[in-house]
Amino acid sequence: MVAPLKVGIAGLGTVGAEVLRLIESRGRVLTARSGRPVRVVAVTARSKAKKRDVDLDGIAWARDPQALAENPDVDCLVELMGGAGDPALSAIEAALKSGKSVVTANKALIAKHGVRLAQAAEKHGGAFNYEAAVGAAIPIVKTLREGLAATGIDRVYGILNGTCNYILTRMEREGLSFAECLKDAQRLGYAEADPSFDVDGHDTAQKLAILASLAFGTKVAQSAVHVEGISSIAPEDLRAAADLGYRVKLLGVAVKTAKGIEQRVHPTMVPKSSSIAQVMDVTNAVTIDGEGIPPITLVGPGAGGAATASAVVADIADIARGVRVHPFGRPVDRLAQIEKAPMERHEGGYYIRLMARDLPGTAATIATRLAEQKISIESIVQRHANGGEPARAGKTPVPVLLITYATHEDAVYRALQAVQRDKVITGRPQVIRIEKN
Amino acid sequence: MVAPLKVGIAGLGTVGAEVLRLIESRGRVLTARSGRPVRVVAVTARSKAKKRDVDLDGIAWARDPQALAENPDVDCLVELMGGAGDPALSAIEAALKSGKSVVTANKALIAKHGVRLAQAAEKHGGAFNYEAAVGAAIPIVKTLREGLAATGIDRVYGILNGTCNYILTRMEREGLSFAECLKDAQRLGYAEADPSFDVDGHDTAQKLAILASLAFGTKVAQSAVHVEGISSIAPEDLRAAADLGYRVKLLGVAVKTAKGIEQRVHPTMVPKSSSIAQVMDVTNAVTIDGEGIPPITLVGPGAGGAATASAVVADIADIARGVRVHPFGRPVDRLAQIEKAPMERHEGGYYIRLMARDLPGTAATIATRLAEQKISIESIVQRHANGGEPARAGKTPVPVLLITYATHEDAVYRALQAVQRDKVITGRPQVIRIEKN
Repeated sequence: MVAPLKVGIAGLGTVGAEVLRLIESRGRVLTARSGRPVRVVAVTARSKAKKRDVDLDGIAWARDPQALAENPDVDCLVELMGGAGDPALSAIEAALKSGKSVVTANKALIAKHGVRLAQAAEKHGGAFNYEAAVGAAIPIVKTLREGLAATGIDRVYGILNGTCNYILTRMEREGLSFAECLKDAQRLGYAEADPSFDVDGHDTAQKLAILASLAFGTKVAQSAVHVEGISSIAPEDLRAAADLGYRVKLLGVAVKTAKGIEQRVHPTMVPKSSSIAQVMDVTNAVTIDGEGIPPITLVGPGAGGAATASAVVADIADIARGVRVHPFGRPVDRLAQIEKAPMERHEGGYYIRLMARDLPGTAATIATRLAEQKISIESIVQRHANGGEPARAGKTPVPVLLITYATHEDAVYRALQAVQRDKVITGRPQVIRIEKN
Repeated sequence: MVAPLKVGIAGLGTVGAEVLRLIESRGRVLTARSGRPVRVVAVTARSKAKKRDVDLDGIAWARDPQALAENPDVDCLVELMGGAGDPALSAIEAALKSGKSVVTANKALIAKHGVRLAQAAEKHGGAFNYEAAVGAAIPIVKTLREGLAATGIDRVYGILNGTCNYILTRMEREGLSFAECLKDAQRLGYAEADPSFDVDGHDTAQKLAILASLAFGTKVAQSAVHVEGISSIAPEDLRAAADLGYRVKLLGVAVKTAKGIEQRVHPTMVPKSSSIAQVMDVTNAVTIDGEGIPPITLVGPGAGGAATASAVVADIADIARGVRVHPFGRPVDRLAQIEKAPMERHEGGYYIRLMARDLPGTAATIATRLAEQKISIESIVQRHANGGEPARAGKTPVPVLLITYATHEDAVYRALQAVQRDKVITGRPQVIRIEKN
């Protein structure tokens, strides 16, 4: 009889409870798969008194996460408390330093301290697994870390936040405003009371920074991510996108360029026919462009108790089986500093929506300013207020929609500044980057 | 300095050559990832004299696959010759019995002898990896074997043959016949001179049998797969599907039912909004329904030298890292015999296209025969020859399109036999199963 892998769980929310249940209900299969039983021996959570729908019989209650991490009876600490700092950080560090393995779903912590923790894991021989931190049950970490071990990666991008995708889906389907859809998302539990972490793109940025490290063999660098959220997106942008053969998604994109690595999170126009454009509601998806091979896309639930627990327990099973993989695919001392590509040198197509004064020559002025910056226009559509000739010229601003061919970001902003100085438009131009598949 | 993993490659076609190149060009990264260099020490192929675009300097040439497998200098045999029998089978068996590890892309061999080979691997301590055998670079084997280790699987289904998907895509887009598209596919190298292995569904069946084993913990049972190909599909079926909100794909479906496990390969109507329906041309995709979690879909290249080599070298990297996973996820003695669900008890919706004599009462007769078998009709569309009232009644048969609610397969066939006896239709009814997502 092989000795069981003894697990301690810190955090008994939805995910923690589901992990307990899964280990219990799937125990026989897990043992068969790992060659070793998995047993939860100790747990801890903020309140011991709280009513929980899980059976803690025969499981020790640790005073706090630190005590759980230091419990000599625990082989593997499962951290499900969240938060980029303590108590999660200290507990994980203590566990790793004593040679224990750690499984976590804590993206914030990995984005901030992942490299340091990976180093501790390598030094002391424990595993440090975090499949659930990005895309929950979607096996994206394993795919980048092991499945594509041999293949150079050019780009990895995806829909990494279900809240944003839900809001954009509703806005597109029903023509509603961002504010209305956000309110609905909050009512349905898809968005937090303070939604800024999700809708401003920070959640996506943390996940993207982790994926970029796995894809490119660089140190996680969340601060090098350019972040824009979705609150500025208007229903008319989604309508225009549809007319032009695109859909708007909040993407996290990490891409190798001649100027370094771009990491960026922003609303993005993607071709309607792309795999990523089909991903609706709270579903997540990641596309990987490997050198010389067609793209691989993984689609699935990016959140939820059962989906997250599925990934956590798979990570535990790997540890029980004795698998040790470098947390970021290669040894920490082989991870390069990320060389950040400057965002103003970003190259790509752009969608631009301007509110133009409905005067003769406006389109010509705009086209000239773009031409001065050597920007080629793929299409320009000027929508007259009443659909025909400018009847009451100049009275009501009309939308002008532009799609550019690939150009530089700074050229776009210089051209738009010039257009603003020309006083042919009102308000702020809307600019959305286009990502080709 | 850690001793390198010494690899012997049998078969130097497109994939073999690409594997050689990848190990050479990605050597440093592979070493960093695996903690151990990977070195190709010996190769063999049918003809030594053949001109190849690879550098074989310093690599030994083995007399034949058997000699390569028995070469004491080889730690890991990479079999890329194909074929369900010898020389691949004997060589792999010899390698495993001497404790070596084996990597193969040979689906036919695994579908036929996989369990026996897995047993040899388990007994002698080697790894037996075959990620490339299903879906090439799509990490579907790893996902089922490791990524979803903790999660019970209810159903796994997918587009596993690029040739069929290419033909169906062209037929749908261009309204062409099966024969025309097949000819084009052959011209473009997407289909073999003898296309029957692909278009009759046997290639899909082999891959499906492997996936079913991984998903359900059962022994691979290719002979238990119900197989139908795509040659009977007509452009009018694809048009009707589109009108009704579906698309036709050749799916391999493995699903747990109350009556056992269904494994079936057949043209299938899938809702146009499903992830799988978006997969066009030669691209492959697999969807996994895990217990209690939303579906996970993996999309990517299912064939091609570079994509296949990517998976082969990732398998080698796992072996270099010392990873040993049961080839089918659990020990062979824990794999159950598959309990085959009888196809006539298959339950689902059906699309039925009949060529009906254009006489009053035909639709009523058909509806009555279905009602006798307790089949509920979701929609019935009778297309009159000239779009209006039956002008020259009975002269020209007109298509009747039916969509049924979930029913049993034998009920459908009993009803259609009755309709044929009633002589209200001409020719053979077309029947396509519907798969809901």
